[in-house]
Amino acid sequence: MSSKKPVAIVFDTFGSVVDWRGSLVAEMKELGGKRGVNGDWAAVADAWRHGYHRMLDEVTAGTRDYGLLDDLHRELLDEAMRDVGVTGFREDDLRDINLGWHRLKAWPDAVAGLTRLKTKYIVGSLSNGNVRLLVDMAKGANLPWDVVFGSDMFSRFKPHPDTYLGSARLLNLEPGEVMLASAHNGDLANARKYGLMTGFFLRPTEFGPNQAIDLAAEADWDVIADDIEDMATKLDT
Amino acid sequence: MSSKKPVAIVFDTFGSVVDWRGSLVAEMKELGGKRGVNGDWAAVADAWRHGYHRMLDEVTAGTRDYGLLDDLHRELLDEAMRDVGVTGFREDDLRDINLGWHRLKAWPDAVAGLTRLKTKYIVGSLSNGNVRLLVDMAKGANLPWDVVFGSDMFSRFKPHPDTYLGSARLLNLEPGEVMLASAHNGDLANARKYGLMTGFFLRPTEFGPNQAIDLAAEADWDVIADDIEDMATKLDT
Repeated sequence: MSSKKPVAIVFDTFGSVVDWRGSLVAEMKELGGKRGVNGDWAAVADAWRHGYHRMLDEVTAGTRDYGLLDDLHRELLDEAMRDVGVTGFREDDLRDINLGWHRLKAWPDAVAGLTRLKTKYIVGSLSNGNVRLLVDMAKGANLPWDVVFGSDMFSRFKPHPDTYLGSARLLNLEPGEVMLASAHNGDLANARKYGLMTGFFLRPTEFGPNQAIDLAAEADWDVIADDIEDMATKLDT
Repeated sequence: MSSKKPVAIVFDTFGSVVDWRGSLVAEMKELGGKRGVNGDWAAVADAWRHGYHRMLDEVTAGTRDYGLLDDLHRELLDEAMRDVGVTGFREDDLRDINLGWHRLKAWPDAVAGLTRLKTKYIVGSLSNGNVRLLVDMAKGANLPWDVVFGSDMFSRFKPHPDTYLGSARLLNLEPGEVMLASAHNGDLANARKYGLMTGFFLRPTEFGPNQAIDLAAEADWDVIADDIEDMATKLDT
């Protein structure tokens, strides 16, 4: 592990800090029960997230423009429901399900780990979510951010360099003084490409019980930890 | 008082949430004592702030470009020291004095009031300070912001509309769903011009014992309060 320490640590949120899949499946199941709508909710959540990754690739390739994640999520939700064959939700139900991203629950170690890290480092989100989504998420899950960086501040999604470098610029720091912390090796590879420090931690069930990726650090990241509490220990807090 | 309630409340910070004058005078006095440098510290603080207001007018008039407040503050500090006739500080002393803006202390009611408001509203800063300054200030003074809006996010200072409207845009709200809270009637007049709600509270000693402005609400602001705790009461928190 690198002996150098960052000044600020910015966190990927979806999957890394909050459990998108478990939270969305639980909310859809509950609302489906109320409305008498049945569905394979894990399949809907996975299709939704798959659509998101495809959409990011399109934006990166330049075949789709940047848009507010709330709006893109809604378009992708309709598609996911259709693909999995769920019918029967009303328009306001779908609107509410889409806002489920604002209500994602934190992984059990997240609040305690961030609270410890915050005593010594600036801690912030660096997410493809829009600012409002991240603010609502932080309020609901008690995430103690010092600062929220959302993609609508840069009109760019990760992995565009404006996002990683924009967080450093707004903190008046050199990129090498900022650490991206994420459960995703690909996210960290991009952050390293633009000069940020890198911190990896494990979320082995983010994608469900049969997760096949991000089960280990795939490079010599500056910090490699089991979870955010362990990262706090490894960063002396 | 208006019966309509905002969704988010964004706060002017210098003077409204933190006591810039008292904090800077105390820090300069302490460092002056250590270095054997004497000066009329209240006069330096007032000249510094006066330079800032003149600088804002120049930016508004278009005769000066937007710049990071940390950098502008440093230029204005040198000028204030010269004008008041203080000599003897070293370069690193002046750098440290300039960073005093990152360490401003909160008014006694601020943390308690913001903590109450945060239970029901999104609370954020909307300041001409840069993001890093505001983040450091919040960490030092325990300000419980949900979100930090600094002028470097918009590359504009208040009263440019991009600042007031930018905070609403990033919160995905209509301007009328956001309240600017400030101890400065002029700030509120601008916010109202761009469609925001307005909340006034008193800081009768912000400019020292002989303060002559902002000693009362000068318009029918949506909320008029004694301080931030009183504002929390008037907004049912």
